[in-house]
Amino acid sequence: MPLEYPNQHIADLVANDRTAQWLGATLVGVGPGTADVVLGVGEQMCNGHGTCHGGVLFTLADIAFSYACNSAGVLNVAAAADVQFVAPAHAGQRLRASARERLRYGKDRRSGLYDVQVTVEDTGELVALFTGRAAQIGGRS
Amino acid sequence: MPLEYPNQHIADLVANDRTAQWLGATLVGVGPGTADVVLGVGEQMCNGHGTCHGGVLFTLADIAFSYACNSAGVLNVAAAADVQFVAPAHAGQRLRASARERLRYGKDRRSGLYDVQVTVEDTGELVALFTGRAAQIGGRS
Amino acid sequence: MPLEYPNQHIADLVANDRTAQWLGATLVGVGPGTADVVLGVGEQMCNGHGTCHGGVLFTLADIAFSYACNSAGVLNVAAAADVQFVAPAHAGQRLRASARERLRYGKDRRSGLYDVQVTVEDTGELVALFTGRAAQIGGRS
Amino acid sequence: MPLEYPNQHIADLVANDRTAQWLGATLVGVGPGTADVVLGVGEQMCNGHGTCHGGVLFTLADIAFSYACNSAGVLNVAAAADVQFVAPAHAGQRLRASARERLRYGKDRRSGLYDVQVTVEDTGELVALFTGRAAQIGGRS
Repeated sequence: MPLEYPNQHIADLVANDRTAQWLGATLVGVGPGTADVVLGVGEQMCNGHGTCHGGVLFTLADIAFSYACNSAGVLNVAAAADVQFVAPAHAGQRLRASARERLRYGKDRRSGLYDVQVTVEDTGELVALFTGRAAQIGGRS
Repeated sequence: MPLEYPNQHIADLVANDRTAQWLGATLVGVGPGTADVVLGVGEQMCNGHGTCHGGVLFTLADIAFSYACNSAGVLNVAAAADVQFVAPAHAGQRLRASARERLRYGKDRRSGLYDVQVTVEDTGELVALFTGRAAQIGGRS
Repeated sequence: MPLEYPNQHIADLVANDRTAQWLGATLVGVGPGTADVVLGVGEQMCNGHGTCHGGVLFTLADIAFSYACNSAGVLNVAAAADVQFVAPAHAGQRLRASARERLRYGKDRRSGLYDVQVTVEDTGELVALFTGRAAQIGGRS
Repeated sequence: MPLEYPNQHIADLVANDRTAQWLGATLVGVGPGTADVVLGVGEQMCNGHGTCHGGVLFTLADIAFSYACNSAGVLNVAAAADVQFVAPAHAGQRLRASARERLRYGKDRRSGLYDVQVTVEDTGELVALFTGRAAQIGGRS
């Protein structure tokens, strides 16, 4: 069953997200201030240590963050983010990034903080913790 | 002229970095605590806003960071990182990530901080600022 | 009515917190993974710009964080923290720092992330956002 | 011999810094993008663990950061900061915070990153690592 999008803005954002498509990251849930994205880790996503590249973990979290902060139908871009790598992930695993809005703040609530947890889908093991800071640009799209 | 690696550990790390190869990121310089990596931004690296995905910018910086913190021939992994997105980058641009060791500290200097700047190769425009925290695991590889 | 502490560990921690006493910061609520601390901003807490010093805002948040991460009766110390300064605070204002556990993770859940919001007590205006990373040391105290 | 200030703006900022005076933090050096501040740790600066409060370490670093980012005579305020606590400090120790400009960037170079190391004066032991993000407000003061 195809995912229902809460608005056209987020539907367009997902449809045009070339990076998510290239990676094979799939949006499996989106609601007010939340988004869940899953990704199967391929061999090409591994670093010289033989584990999933931190950049891939970050990108997966960043994709979920971008959908969550745009879920209200208002254009938001990432201003900054930080990530902690908790445990290595491996090729063959399926990862889930769950993004949740912590707070909107500032003038017209144009700034937002979003927390993302990246876990192994099968076991729930925590792989990475990500926090993104979003900035609304312009008005409603 | 092929790049000369300071030691076998870093040569192996680069040779086995599937993510860097997949992305098309190329190490163009590596020295004590430093690494420079370049990347041509492809259309598949763009997000739904039509600009280079923040995850790609992070990954480029993270690749340079990983080479810089492993440049001494000792196995180091990323523990955490943060990034600020300063200006958008676009498909067709060539980006450079320059990683520099700021500090090694803690017991046996097993922890390290590395700063990375991502700039547009042609103009020098600053695109992103990244700081990575490395942790040495094991002894000399 | 004096505050009831959930355990002796947190009661001792508060009783011995010379910095909180020096500052005049008062714990007004503590529960599982949470703590609320209030502070009246004095003139001596202001910087050369004439506003409440960022270090004071951080310290207030850090105090609430330390109580929240020790609320379970297990010794935890701060490993790292970050803060965003959202709006200036002023002498004469009463500030509230509300700390909430976001997550415990890692081996034996010995690591924790705690979010703290610093607001103006009267208006609810957001002044600062703080995230602290706690590390459990030893077993139950 | 009294310290020579590079300009009146920084001299005023120091003269009016009530928090630094309250704490007993002393500016011992200031140059282009740099500042060094020392502080003797008093018993009243200690937490319930009996070590120097993280808020005090942050505040000392933040004071050095504020002088460094205002050293050019242009009004700058702190936008955000992060800190890592590397080793505990103790009452009776003399600490030094050394702030160094890493980068000015963005429109008219109005944003800046500053790194601060807090060390024990006698031994050089690293106590805390701080990075502050400054924002210029207005023009030259």
